[in-house]
Amino acid sequence: MPIVVVETVAALRLGLEPLRRAGVTIGFVPTMGALHDGHAGLIDRARRDCGRVVVSIFVNPLQFDRPDDLARYPRTLARDLEMCSSRGVDLVFVPDAGEMYPSKAVCTVDPGPVAEHCCGRYRTGHFRGVATVVTKLLNMVQPDVAYFGEKDAQQLAVIRRLVADLNIPVAIVGVPTVREEDGLALSSRNVKLDPEERRLAPCLYAALQEAALRVEGGAADPDAIRQAAAARLPRDERLRLEYLEVVDPESFQPVTRVAGEVIVAGALWVGRTRLIDNVRCRQLAE
Amino acid sequence: MPIVVVETVAALRLGLEPLRRAGVTIGFVPTMGALHDGHAGLIDRARRDCGRVVVSIFVNPLQFDRPDDLARYPRTLARDLEMCSSRGVDLVFVPDAGEMYPSKAVCTVDPGPVAEHCCGRYRTGHFRGVATVVTKLLNMVQPDVAYFGEKDAQQLAVIRRLVADLNIPVAIVGVPTVREEDGLALSSRNVKLDPEERRLAPCLYAALQEAALRVEGGAADPDAIRQAAAARLPRDERLRLEYLEVVDPESFQPVTRVAGEVIVAGALWVGRTRLIDNVRCRQLAE
Repeated sequence: MPIVVVETVAALRLGLEPLRRAGVTIGFVPTMGALHDGHAGLIDRARRDCGRVVVSIFVNPLQFDRPDDLARYPRTLARDLEMCSSRGVDLVFVPDAGEMYPSKAVCTVDPGPVAEHCCGRYRTGHFRGVATVVTKLLNMVQPDVAYFGEKDAQQLAVIRRLVADLNIPVAIVGVPTVREEDGLALSSRNVKLDPEERRLAPCLYAALQEAALRVEGGAADPDAIRQAAAARLPRDERLRLEYLEVVDPESFQPVTRVAGEVIVAGALWVGRTRLIDNVRCRQLAE
Repeated sequence: MPIVVVETVAALRLGLEPLRRAGVTIGFVPTMGALHDGHAGLIDRARRDCGRVVVSIFVNPLQFDRPDDLARYPRTLARDLEMCSSRGVDLVFVPDAGEMYPSKAVCTVDPGPVAEHCCGRYRTGHFRGVATVVTKLLNMVQPDVAYFGEKDAQQLAVIRRLVADLNIPVAIVGVPTVREEDGLALSSRNVKLDPEERRLAPCLYAALQEAALRVEGGAADPDAIRQAAAARLPRDERLRLEYLEVVDPESFQPVTRVAGEVIVAGALWVGRTRLIDNVRCRQLAE
């Protein structure tokens, strides 16, 4: 089946109906485009697991808290479609905002406490926007499995929560973060970094690795862990640490004492670009 | 197929999977039990339209704003199952609260402005609870068509809104209110009325009919319409009008001037029992 590009929900459903009736497993990779090797990893995993692979490309205005961030978000549709085609994607869904939100969306999905901390604390309404658009997309595509990057760990936790709480019949698979050789997590936003910012950017991951080392070494006090991690960031006026938190991997609530597995998550401004990253680590039982 | 009663989501999905694969149309009637002829009307309509009919019976704690109201809500499971059986229902889903909310439900569906007025104004969180449980039930059953009574007009508006905004692949059908001979809308709560309260109860519908007469006669000022309707209520200490509003049928926002079709909705306390009712009416163009 050659790649098919559809722009409407009706065409999407029409294209998927015969597959669903034939019992073909449908894998789904929702994206905001500007596809990179991290997305390729999601697509490849879906390709291995499923009979058909659907990718959506939609820069969701509802999840942007700042209009300038929405305006600056990279858009590379022609290259995205090429990558989808070369990776064996069967169907690409590229709706516009009018198709996704025909009326002002009045009914939304409220993710609750899992969105309170970390990115949720600094990006008002962001995860409500994510939860709403993901619910919509899952209802449009009705996939058997949907794939999300572990790089956006809080987003993944929000989506696992909403799928469980709203009983959406889909399996959610998290796929490990893909990194550059120097450790920088792949992100569509990386193209916005100038060469000097790009050189600085891996320090976020280095700081998180420091935290992971401490946790694995038996450190239990989250404040001490956070301080040790933050101390690894170079002093540079282009860098501004937004948050660095030690949280429970499921609830994304900050832990008061590390025990068992945690996620250390951080957001770092590098010039005008905001990068996020996280590591999952476990305190070994004494 | 004889009637089947299931208590878990897993058993429900297992039971429905072969039907779905065979392309049988599934009709769904979600209820809180205490079934009466209004529910029978929903079931009969589903029976006419669909290959298989599923009824759910679940008194949803999330949509009760007052614990005493939840405790007092009538429960008549044995009779409910008998009625389902006699009306040709194929499957009854009777989950308990643990099955519906295995963890504290943290992720909820926020219906937005459609829930701001009328019942939404007086029952804090009610429609969020309704929207959340209906989304869950629709995702569990995945019906082709779901049936709701027009008696709960704001609930129906909330459900139409969430199905549209979240792209849930189901058709929503509203079924006209069934009434006693004296006009009282059938409701599971009617059994709570003592004989004297029962005698008073039809005055809510009489007041709404007065409002409809005014609208159809050309009245355009909602305040004048509301006053004329309220004046039809007898003076009795057992009666307390909670609200009486003239609203847009889709958005459930109060209109500032009647033009075209409106819903006049009201809630009336009769002793300790809260009754709601509504009429849909149209101002004829001059």
